Amino acid sequence: MNYSDQKLLTKSAMPVGYPLGIVRKLLHRGARSHLAKVFNKAHPADAARMLALLGATERQQVFSILLAECETAQVAAIVSELEIVDSIPLLQSVGAETTARLLSEMPADDATSLASRLPEPLAAEVLRLMEAAPAAEVRGLLEHEERTAGRIMTRNYFALEEDVTVAEAIAALQRRNEELEMVFYVYVIDKHDHLVGVVSLRKLLTTPPSNQLRKIFFTDVTTVSTNTPQEEVAKLVAQYNLLAVPVVDHEDKLVGIVTVDDVIDVLQEETTEDLLALAGVATEEHLSTKLSRSLRLRAPWLLINLGTAFLASYVISRFEGTIGQLTALAALMSIVAGMGGNAATQTLTIVIRGMALDELVSVPWIVLKEVVVGGANGLINGLVCAFVAGLFYKSFWLGVVLAAAMVINLVIAGTAGILIPVALKKLRIDPAVASTVFVTTCTDVGGFFSFLGIATLLMPLLRG
Amino acid sequence: MNYSDQKLLTKSAMPVGYPLGIVRKLLHRGARSHLAKVFNKAHPADAARMLALLGATERQQVFSILLAECETAQVAAIVSELEIVDSIPLLQSVGAETTARLLSEMPADDATSLASRLPEPLAAEVLRLMEAAPAAEVRGLLEHEERTAGRIMTRNYFALEEDVTVAEAIAALQRRNEELEMVFYVYVIDKHDHLVGVVSLRKLLTTPPSNQLRKIFFTDVTTVSTNTPQEEVAKLVAQYNLLAVPVVDHEDKLVGIVTVDDVIDVLQEETTEDLLALAGVATEEHLSTKLSRSLRLRAPWLLINLGTAFLASYVISRFEGTIGQLTALAALMSIVAGMGGNAATQTLTIVIRGMALDELVSVPWIVLKEVVVGGANGLINGLVCAFVAGLFYKSFWLGVVLAAAMVINLVIAGTAGILIPVALKKLRIDPAVASTVFVTTCTDVGGFFSFLGIATLLMPLLRG
Repeated sequence: MNYSDQKLLTKSAMPVGYPLGIVRKLLHRGARSHLAKVFNKAHPADAARMLALLGATERQQVFSILLAECETAQVAAIVSELEIVDSIPLLQSVGAETTARLLSEMPADDATSLASRLPEPLAAEVLRLMEAAPAAEVRGLLEHEERTAGRIMTRNYFALEEDVTVAEAIAALQRRNEELEMVFYVYVIDKHDHLVGVVSLRKLLTTPPSNQLRKIFFTDVTTVSTNTPQEEVAKLVAQYNLLAVPVVDHEDKLVGIVTVDDVIDVLQEETTEDLLALAGVATEEHLSTKLSRSLRLRAPWLLINLGTAFLASYVISRFEGTIGQLTALAALMSIVAGMGGNAATQTLTIVIRGMALDELVSVPWIVLKEVVVGGANGLINGLVCAFVAGLFYKSFWLGVVLAAAMVINLVIAGTAGILIPVALKKLRIDPAVASTVFVTTCTDVGGFFSFLGIATLLMPLLRG
Repeated sequence: MNYSDQKLLTKSAMPVGYPLGIVRKLLHRGARSHLAKVFNKAHPADAARMLALLGATERQQVFSILLAECETAQVAAIVSELEIVDSIPLLQSVGAETTARLLSEMPADDATSLASRLPEPLAAEVLRLMEAAPAAEVRGLLEHEERTAGRIMTRNYFALEEDVTVAEAIAALQRRNEELEMVFYVYVIDKHDHLVGVVSLRKLLTTPPSNQLRKIFFTDVTTVSTNTPQEEVAKLVAQYNLLAVPVVDHEDKLVGIVTVDDVIDVLQEETTEDLLALAGVATEEHLSTKLSRSLRLRAPWLLINLGTAFLASYVISRFEGTIGQLTALAALMSIVAGMGGNAATQTLTIVIRGMALDELVSVPWIVLKEVVVGGANGLINGLVCAFVAGLFYKSFWLGVVLAAAMVINLVIAGTAGILIPVALKKLRIDPAVASTVFVTTCTDVGGFFSFLGIATLLMPLLRG
């Protein structure tokens, strides 16, 4: 993506609320050139949004109309703005040649991200067919690991050597007419391409023209290396309010920059991923995801949960004798387990976010805090529970069992909600993905076991 | 916050991993000037992060050392970078005079956000004691609603009239020596302050000096109005890759700009808020939140959930007779309800995110999809369940009851997971906050009712 001057404009033909119905009507009426005109005039981001909202078949139809009737640059810009899950099927359907033509027109970072997701042998074929210069750039970016600075950086930065004067710098900037991703800073390098400093465009304007860059640059520049994870790059840019961060290779040579717009995408992706994963949903799923794919993405999670549900159910089955003696227990046991699940999810969410923000420094203290919060919440809810159950079933001791089990299970919830994600992280398993399953197993098993266990012990009193 | 040239630097005294232990040791050893030196040299964002990680009492102690030993500008910058929940108690503890001194040194948007959260009469007192110019700016921003463009914008933009020449524009820029929040664009206004266009700094550099701005500006600028919700401003900036968006008042006069760094904060806040709310946690809570406050923030949610748990428990109690006849039902009924809760949470999360991204266009189609996905997942899990339960309890009909109840409850889950947030949104209740409670009530009640209901109907076969 780009910060060119033109991106200040939003073409107004398709406002954010452009009715989907009109697009559909034009499509079904076969008004190809009218449809193409609407998409041609729209800001690529709006056009992409409109495409994303269409069903998969309609999207395919509109896309082939666009390919036939619109400027390639506009179609490439629209594809750039689509989410990967939407754009890859479109590109696969049109074949290597057209894909190569589109990728050649895109910013290298976007083309790379698409090329890396295309299946082989299509990807290799596309790279072979692309224009030489963009293909070389894409190959260069592909050398770096996915989700690192090297993969998401752009090579369209503006760098000059330190003995260049301000006047020469301005002249050089005036000569560079092609689109530069970030024209707000001039990066200053030495003879060997090492980054030595940075000058803002504003500084250039306010300095006597004969000064050399070495006299006016800032030297203490924040940099990242090509293999810095994209998440860390994003945190850095967000934390220090940067517009772009320069990327250096293992020899400290300047090789690219990551701009704030790409950082926004990374940040949105990462926060959403963590929290979607907590709900046991694959992050690729959207409202527009095809039915069969939604099913395939969600079913495994439910099957895993089914496995853990059997475990809880096994615990209950060991107490069937107790339940047989007092069926009221069956009605109340789900309360204890359910409340544990809710309390644990609260803790878990805070911990997962805390981990993402690097807030998790003192584990023992947090465990202690969660145990106390869990115990206190257990007491509050246990007492309410005991009161209501006592009224309803006219049994003091049933209330006592409920209250005690609630305290125990909410302490289990607090402990599991913090210790399980911490343990998973130590084992290098993404805590956002796997925590919920383990944590709710703990609270289910803990809830049923404590409630039915105490009830079994106190059965003489309960039946009294 | 600012995009000044200086923000390109990160002072390196306190790197991201600066050990908290050292800060604590310095504090407890009473090494005040050493501690102040560390915080003085650090980038304000790092210093704020370190403060946030300390316990509440230590934070207070360090803060008073900083006030005594550091430059006011640095302390103000650190407070700017703190989260509101952490900074407000610090400011309350030091009183109106010191707070006024700090707020006078901050960018107006940060000072405003703090002033609006201070309790009365402290807030009024602080505004009275602040320096005249910043106080006026804060008062101006306070006139706008919270969470709107008017509240988060800055007035530090650079605007010139359209008949100004390029040479004059550059000269004006050179004269403006104070910090400008966004020096990359020159906004062009007419005699009556109406925004008529924008010129990039790069364009200024590449245009003959005698040209008037009116000849080179872009006219089709994306703007927002002072009462545009901050969420919409953020979406706009993210979608069109803007660095800043100009804010106009009801007469179309330029009154400020919102910059991309503030947009990043808004985006992170909004995504996290929605998804934390789904877990029934107030968004103000962090890992460092005080124990008593965590308890106060979470307890209400658990009490609400307790209420709905009683409803589910009531449904079970109506079937106590059935359970009494076959206690195995007690062990299995929690599986059906639990799976329904999980499936519903999956749907809900996708829907909530879809709403945030404006993806939710065709409700009937999505309901249909969720019903089919729910039914299919119900069938898969129901069959597995029936098989395992059949093996375990050696009862074919128990398996049938489980499978049937699972299908019914997962269809209920899909339907509730989409219809409840849609209904809440129509009622103008934030669906992220209230959906979970209602949705899990549906799946609990639905799960127990369908399973125990079918079991009651088929009791002769089950006991056969």
